Amino acid sequence: MTKVIDFQTDPSRYRHWRVAYDGPVANLYMDVDEDGGLFEGYQLKLNSYDLGVDIELADIVQRMRFEHPEVKVVVLQSGKDRVFCAGANIRMLGGAAHSHKVNFCKFTNETRNTFEAAEADSGQKYIAAVRGACAGGGYELALACNHIMLTDDSTSSVALPEVPLLAVLPGTGGLTRVTDKRKVRRDLADVFCSTEEGVKGKRALDWRLVDEVIANSKFDAAVQERARDFAAASGKPDVAKGIRLGPLARTVAEGGSLSYSLVEVAVDRANRRATITLSGPEAPAPADMAAFEAEGDQAYLLRLARELDDAILHLRLNEMEAGLLVFRTQGDAEHLLAHEALLAANADHWLANEVRQYWKRLLKRVDVTARSMVALVEHGSCFAGVLAEILFAVDRSYMMEGEFEGDNRPVAAITLSEANFGPCPMANGLTRLQTRFLGAPEQVGALEGHKGDALEAEAADALGLVTMILDDIDWEDEIRIFMEERASFSPDAMTGMEANLRFAGPETMETRIFGRLTAWQNWIFNRPNAVGKDGALQRYGSGVRGDYNMERV
Amino acid sequence: MTKVIDFQTDPSRYRHWRVAYDGPVANLYMDVDEDGGLFEGYQLKLNSYDLGVDIELADIVQRMRFEHPEVKVVVLQSGKDRVFCAGANIRMLGGAAHSHKVNFCKFTNETRNTFEAAEADSGQKYIAAVRGACAGGGYELALACNHIMLTDDSTSSVALPEVPLLAVLPGTGGLTRVTDKRKVRRDLADVFCSTEEGVKGKRALDWRLVDEVIANSKFDAAVQERARDFAAASGKPDVAKGIRLGPLARTVAEGGSLSYSLVEVAVDRANRRATITLSGPEAPAPADMAAFEAEGDQAYLLRLARELDDAILHLRLNEMEAGLLVFRTQGDAEHLLAHEALLAANADHWLANEVRQYWKRLLKRVDVTARSMVALVEHGSCFAGVLAEILFAVDRSYMMEGEFEGDNRPVAAITLSEANFGPCPMANGLTRLQTRFLGAPEQVGALEGHKGDALEAEAADALGLVTMILDDIDWEDEIRIFMEERASFSPDAMTGMEANLRFAGPETMETRIFGRLTAWQNWIFNRPNAVGKDGALQRYGSGVRGDYNMERV
Repeated sequence: MTKVIDFQTDPSRYRHWRVAYDGPVANLYMDVDEDGGLFEGYQLKLNSYDLGVDIELADIVQRMRFEHPEVKVVVLQSGKDRVFCAGANIRMLGGAAHSHKVNFCKFTNETRNTFEAAEADSGQKYIAAVRGACAGGGYELALACNHIMLTDDSTSSVALPEVPLLAVLPGTGGLTRVTDKRKVRRDLADVFCSTEEGVKGKRALDWRLVDEVIANSKFDAAVQERARDFAAASGKPDVAKGIRLGPLARTVAEGGSLSYSLVEVAVDRANRRATITLSGPEAPAPADMAAFEAEGDQAYLLRLARELDDAILHLRLNEMEAGLLVFRTQGDAEHLLAHEALLAANADHWLANEVRQYWKRLLKRVDVTARSMVALVEHGSCFAGVLAEILFAVDRSYMMEGEFEGDNRPVAAITLSEANFGPCPMANGLTRLQTRFLGAPEQVGALEGHKGDALEAEAADALGLVTMILDDIDWEDEIRIFMEERASFSPDAMTGMEANLRFAGPETMETRIFGRLTAWQNWIFNRPNAVGKDGALQRYGSGVRGDYNMERV
Repeated sequence: MTKVIDFQTDPSRYRHWRVAYDGPVANLYMDVDEDGGLFEGYQLKLNSYDLGVDIELADIVQRMRFEHPEVKVVVLQSGKDRVFCAGANIRMLGGAAHSHKVNFCKFTNETRNTFEAAEADSGQKYIAAVRGACAGGGYELALACNHIMLTDDSTSSVALPEVPLLAVLPGTGGLTRVTDKRKVRRDLADVFCSTEEGVKGKRALDWRLVDEVIANSKFDAAVQERARDFAAASGKPDVAKGIRLGPLARTVAEGGSLSYSLVEVAVDRANRRATITLSGPEAPAPADMAAFEAEGDQAYLLRLARELDDAILHLRLNEMEAGLLVFRTQGDAEHLLAHEALLAANADHWLANEVRQYWKRLLKRVDVTARSMVALVEHGSCFAGVLAEILFAVDRSYMMEGEFEGDNRPVAAITLSEANFGPCPMANGLTRLQTRFLGAPEQVGALEGHKGDALEAEAADALGLVTMILDDIDWEDEIRIFMEERASFSPDAMTGMEANLRFAGPETMETRIFGRLTAWQNWIFNRPNAVGKDGALQRYGSGVRGDYNMERV
């Protein structure tokens, strides 16, 4: 699996999904093309999915928010007759490298989370209309919706058969959403998760696995009625027209470096790092939201987010050895803050809201990226407002102090804005500054008094905003030593360490999915009982059960 | 490592620790016998430890609470000159099976937690007095204390060198306590956890890694002064005399079955299960706490707890393939509740408190035991009060319904008491009933109205207390099928599933240690970068660094 994976797509290229837009209701059909797998060696039977199917789904969810703001309810359903969705494709999983499996699961988890975010942030509610078998990742898709309707017939059921059938976990949020979102009683959850054939009808309702069970003959009508009900009850403001998300301008150079309009990614394979440089705005902020809307997908903050999002996903799946991501910015901080201020002042404008929520999601994506991350606050940089959040998302930051010989760029400074005090919470529900100063919460209040101040190195250091400040004499050596050292550590240990250090404080369903559930799944993905030659994933479909080492760990 | 591991010890057998009791202050010296390793093949140099060292420590902490209730402050210090503690022994880890490593870490985690529990539950405060190198598991020992004092000299430092040195995590609570207890700023934590040599003096204080830094010449005096200060400020009531914890009566039969005075453990290796039967009290409850105290370690609820505790630890480490633990009880529920009521009515009596807190810890140990667990509520059983908690700790429960032919024992019933509504919270901070009914919190209130009622099968089922009720006709087959099925699943998948399903609701430092941190560590413990023949653990001490696959996962 060394093919380059492209996260960009658009409706004209979908092979696995269809959307029928009907005013405030969008009917989303999963109809996976068996022969449309991202890699060779498997067929996507029974609406099973691989990363390619999920890339399309992520694109749909994203476009729904920007291109179809009129949508208030999305009905997720199967375009096939007897199956809702059979979950992740097992042969794909069986053949995939550990790193691919893990990154595939992370991306599908992020995409499932966007269903819930769509309702919480924009009032777009997802209904799962389940007819036919809904198993494993299929039920996890339904679990990510906020309302599950199940046909009451002999072939329709919900199931998480991973444990008994495949010796792995329902790892795309399944176990966590069963206990923490659906709040299924834990002993019933135990029965459910160890029963291959799943649960049907009234029992599924009694056990809280679904919200409604409806006779087959009345199912379609009931689903559409429920969709209209939810749409009518929605508090989402009416928006007639969205903006189009066009293709990103991106070029890929020999050696893997990427170039977008505002983002440069210099990939240094020999040294196992990638440097991501974000540019500040070229032009002044639009005068008002009408002007912003007229700019469409070219509006600075939206374009920057889309480019950075694509760059991170690209690096995750295509540059597996780039263990260190170095974040840089260059540009005018005041310009940047003016762009941001327009959105903040119009936070209740639908598009301002969407762009702000997108930055929230994007920064969460940065948080869970399993690479060491460092930010370099250099002269000429624009770590201000939402871009300053990157400083609090990365593992460390280094800042230039004082004049550097031969460098006539404006001296390095960090400027905080309202973006750092609320609109971009981490998965743990706290702002990055609250998480950073868990031991000194008064510090967050003190920082709020510095909003708008261009904080140079000494001040930023005193306020705890950066890890280290370095002058002209030390800068180059210190950074080089850090990078070399970081690149020499065991990547696994770094992943484990960062997954623990980044999320202090409270936990939420989201942090549990990425922390507890994912970690156990990754452990199992390394165990011979699942992935060995006689393990369950390899033997799947052979009629012979996995041969297990029965020692309990 | 197939030697039988015995968790019972007593001060006359300690090889690695000394305690000097001095009124309200106990000075606890770690002075590991290099040649006293539990297994062959390594020396316990530099106060490094293996499971045997930790078994002694756990025994000390436990005895401190029962035998030395006069102690208000425990000063943990090194009995060696230039080293505080070098952490878990690396050669031991390098040579240990995965299952041993995981169970070793779990036990050490549980023991560290008892430091914190001792202060929270009994007012016994732990001070770490650090002189010399304090690295890895050594610093994790200090982190478990509630006050850390560090000598300010050139050789004394605190460090978590696991990541750079060994390619594994500081997995005995280290990463979690750094972020969530010490609340170290995360970028500083990142620097700290990737710096082999650790942090010294004032910087350790500034980074919140320690609470005090004191010149070497004044260190001993300052430590003893601080201990006396804390003792004087302690709200712990004065108790002149404890009770002695004598050796447990235990016999081990061929085939692994165990017999205590109140606990029978039938080990069925062929079917990979162990049945644990707890007996109700033989005698009526003591008349008052004076009578209870006079019974000493023979008091029913204390004896039962100690025997069950030992049985669970024994099974964890010595019966690795017993993947299913079956809990049974037999006895008189009313008698049992009378024993419990005496302690509840005297909850502020030091010994009543200690026994109740011990049950809290013991039930938490059950919760985190990585075996499938089931309870059988049979006729003649006494799942009442604190023993009913077992029903809510296990993964599933089955209950006999109605008369069974030829069985003239009293019909199966469950009786709730105050023990089920507060004194035994899980690690997540909720009671087991609150966790069970996360989706229907009103149910917990309803159950409170049934305290003292002997709830037979139909009522217990209707109230959601058991997973399934079965009559005479179905009982045997259903239980057999369940057990066979459970024994056939991949043990790894069961471990991962149970670790997720058991802990719904809020998370705490404790759940994070057993969930997130442990899961990542277990994952790393399976990765070649750590444990492969060219991995860091194997190469440790060779002067050659681990040969890593640099792909990031």
